[in-house]
Amino acid sequence: MSGFVDTLKAASSSSYSSMASLTSRLEHSVTPDALRSYLAEFISTFLFVFATVGSVMSSRKMMPDAAMDPSSLIVNAIANAFSLAVAVYIAAGVSGGHVNPAVTFGMAVGGHISVPMAIFYWISQLIASVMACLLLKVSTVSQHVPTHGIPQEMTGFGASILEGVMTFALVYTVYAAGDPRRGPLGAVGPLAIGFISGANVLASGPFTGGSMNPATSFGSALIGGSFKNHAVYWIGPLIGAALAGILYDNVVFPVQVPGIADRAGV
Amino acid sequence: MSGFVDTLKAASSSSYSSMASLTSRLEHSVTPDALRSYLAEFISTFLFVFATVGSVMSSRKMMPDAAMDPSSLIVNAIANAFSLAVAVYIAAGVSGGHVNPAVTFGMAVGGHISVPMAIFYWISQLIASVMACLLLKVSTVSQHVPTHGIPQEMTGFGASILEGVMTFALVYTVYAAGDPRRGPLGAVGPLAIGFISGANVLASGPFTGGSMNPATSFGSALIGGSFKNHAVYWIGPLIGAALAGILYDNVVFPVQVPGIADRAGV
Amino acid sequence: MSGFVDTLKAASSSSYSSMASLTSRLEHSVTPDALRSYLAEFISTFLFVFATVGSVMSSRKMMPDAAMDPSSLIVNAIANAFSLAVAVYIAAGVSGGHVNPAVTFGMAVGGHISVPMAIFYWISQLIASVMACLLLKVSTVSQHVPTHGIPQEMTGFGASILEGVMTFALVYTVYAAGDPRRGPLGAVGPLAIGFISGANVLASGPFTGGSMNPATSFGSALIGGSFKNHAVYWIGPLIGAALAGILYDNVVFPVQVPGIADRAGV
Amino acid sequence: MSGFVDTLKAASSSSYSSMASLTSRLEHSVTPDALRSYLAEFISTFLFVFATVGSVMSSRKMMPDAAMDPSSLIVNAIANAFSLAVAVYIAAGVSGGHVNPAVTFGMAVGGHISVPMAIFYWISQLIASVMACLLLKVSTVSQHVPTHGIPQEMTGFGASILEGVMTFALVYTVYAAGDPRRGPLGAVGPLAIGFISGANVLASGPFTGGSMNPATSFGSALIGGSFKNHAVYWIGPLIGAALAGILYDNVVFPVQVPGIADRAGV
Repeated sequence: MSGFVDTLKAASSSSYSSMASLTSRLEHSVTPDALRSYLAEFISTFLFVFATVGSVMSSRKMMPDAAMDPSSLIVNAIANAFSLAVAVYIAAGVSGGHVNPAVTFGMAVGGHISVPMAIFYWISQLIASVMACLLLKVSTVSQHVPTHGIPQEMTGFGASILEGVMTFALVYTVYAAGDPRRGPLGAVGPLAIGFISGANVLASGPFTGGSMNPATSFGSALIGGSFKNHAVYWIGPLIGAALAGILYDNVVFPVQVPGIADRAGV
Repeated sequence: MSGFVDTLKAASSSSYSSMASLTSRLEHSVTPDALRSYLAEFISTFLFVFATVGSVMSSRKMMPDAAMDPSSLIVNAIANAFSLAVAVYIAAGVSGGHVNPAVTFGMAVGGHISVPMAIFYWISQLIASVMACLLLKVSTVSQHVPTHGIPQEMTGFGASILEGVMTFALVYTVYAAGDPRRGPLGAVGPLAIGFISGANVLASGPFTGGSMNPATSFGSALIGGSFKNHAVYWIGPLIGAALAGILYDNVVFPVQVPGIADRAGV
Repeated sequence: MSGFVDTLKAASSSSYSSMASLTSRLEHSVTPDALRSYLAEFISTFLFVFATVGSVMSSRKMMPDAAMDPSSLIVNAIANAFSLAVAVYIAAGVSGGHVNPAVTFGMAVGGHISVPMAIFYWISQLIASVMACLLLKVSTVSQHVPTHGIPQEMTGFGASILEGVMTFALVYTVYAAGDPRRGPLGAVGPLAIGFISGANVLASGPFTGGSMNPATSFGSALIGGSFKNHAVYWIGPLIGAALAGILYDNVVFPVQVPGIADRAGV
Repeated sequence: MSGFVDTLKAASSSSYSSMASLTSRLEHSVTPDALRSYLAEFISTFLFVFATVGSVMSSRKMMPDAAMDPSSLIVNAIANAFSLAVAVYIAAGVSGGHVNPAVTFGMAVGGHISVPMAIFYWISQLIASVMACLLLKVSTVSQHVPTHGIPQEMTGFGASILEGVMTFALVYTVYAAGDPRRGPLGAVGPLAIGFISGANVLASGPFTGGSMNPATSFGSALIGGSFKNHAVYWIGPLIGAALAGILYDNVVFPVQVPGIADRAGV
């Protein structure tokens, strides 16, 4: 964590020239601490996508008509909530436990992670998701990998708004969980992050699938073989995440004392 | 939080004349800290109502006969528990995370929030609920927004009592969660608040819908277009909330040392 | 809490004569602190029984054949887990949050509560349970209040063993949750108590109903009108509770430093 | 805990001769503190296996076709998550709360428990699991004890990989939960361990049964009378556990300051 924060500080203090700054930033993106962060993001995203996509495959294996069964929605929501809480928990202290390109984007918007590092986070998260979906497909002998989608009567615009609102809730909670001013409440931060994600899956399952995470949607789309309406799972979440970061830091919980802005680690 | 407490103290110490006091109280209700409190209540209530009303719409989309299916009740109860826990969590430190006019009423009865501020809390909560229900209706292409209601054989009086008992449990838990004398147990306070709400939804779903929250009932009634038996969801909860506040503060956990009464923030 | 501990200490130090001791113990059982303990037990037990018995009534209202439906079992288990966690949470610091005559018995066996106080705890818990069941019956217009029972092929002996093992797990967890040597883990103690109860309901629902609590069984039997096999729900739990207390204190976590035995408050 | 750590330190400092070292290690495996550790593992594993195997029996009692019903999967997953969290919680401070031969193996690979002690842990865990399954069979009047198995189209290799990945997630979380560098997050460690286990049951139920625990699989296979594909539940978990320990300690969270390696107690 301290290494990660040092990286951020060093990156932001290099202001003599934009070229030197860029070089410096890139150098700071490949320190041992930074590399460990990318690995932590990879592991956490892999385990999260494994559980959450696997849980949908599980329901469908048991009941072919699972998409019309509320208990299948519970299966997915609890797997999502529990595994996200743990994915954030195990990466806390190294990478901050983003586990989600939208969260990384929301953190970059708020200045809590440098752009070069954010790009490496995205790469780690996307590769992890693809590999988790591939592993599920291979080990279950070509069981179909489910992709996020929307029902026929809904518009892509409406679906983007739903995904955006839910990702707003998620990223706002990530900001709150990582805020050192919360004192003892910080201990349950990873649980709060998992819980809001699970609640939103329950609220949106038959409408958008409840992704809130472009990496999950991308991995399952690539291995499942369908990119239909895929833009919904990037546009909504990224906009929602950015708004959450801006609102939390500048309006609801403005930083009054300088020096307590380093909140990347949950 | 400290700003919020200062507001309270200033408001209560202004005693030279009731007119000046009123002016002073109103002034203290529009400080930047107070405004941030209202915004925090708006955000938390919006996200809570979105998840809890959305989860019912989700079940009904999957299964038209969801009202007669215990797994649909679980969908609603878990969405309620998880999203309320998080809604309280993210507002803690600014507004205290009421997310519910009955909770605000219970806090006002105990003197933990001034009446003018409580009114602004109510306004924020009610508008947030209406907007969340409207967003759900629009983005799901006019899916019906469900309203709280009671079965034909029940009386409004019986339903009010059920809602009152459950809101008593909720507000009593809010008081306990915000009590600084609880030490390390405070860290799981928001979870406790979410859990009692979810448990009560399971206990009362087919009888009253398990609201415990006039804002949720009002928003869904307005957008869903039915105010039948609506009084049940105000009378019961407000009375239950008031009793909880009185009992907690004066009987079970009386404040013996002056100065630790500021407990609005969870 | 401190008042409660003082009561215990005073009671145990009064050793000049057994008659004086008895008088002294009785006097210490009616101090204001002791009376607040009984009220706290009443409130917590009432709210717990309301949620857990109510959740069974809820499932049966939705689906008459609920006894044969795993999702109804989940409804009951989650209501049980969440409401017990909160019932313990809100009483911590006053009564210790027993919410269960078996827990009180297990605490008395370990010397953590005096016998006269334990008797008042039992009375509070039993009355609370009866009143919660009565309220449910009245407010739902004579919906049947379900009682704990065992299937025809099982013996009362087998059912007592199951209930005993599960209550052992519960009371052992109560001891662990209240052990001051656990440090920061103490914060999640009430959740652990709720979780083990919920897990055991899932494991035993169709076999014994998963009571682990003589108060719940008594209240629902009285209002539901059937005491068939009722002894199962006293014998098993009381024996299991006593064994848990003895094993925890004397074998697995023996108290090595005198003075840290006061663990009644979670 | 301190006694346990002393045992480890004493064992590792005895380096004059391998024979003396062996004797010394064996002696340190039978100290009172060590014996209490084995008993704690026995109790925790017994209660965990009781709840998790019992929950499957419960579903099947209610619904003979439970294997094809997602709500039965939820019954098993929640029982698993909640009871594992508590089993770890109640043993923390004595044995570290492994409750699982794969976890003990992963801890031995990382040098956090000596090999002789690990062997006694395994023995305690296996006997506890067998006895819990036996108790369930006897007390439910010969209800069939379910065994872990894989569907016909899957290979043992694929199933081992699934079990290995999930056990990796579990043991990695155990390492994180026991890491003293996590500060206040340590308080929710047992919950995180339970949650990842529950999430993985949801992801893998109809594919491998979601064991991640050779003791559960062994006990149910012995009492249920079928060792078909039993190797899957040892090979996958042990390899996954070893990799998790190596990766956590050496790559993602390398120990930089000597002396904080003693993390056996959660």
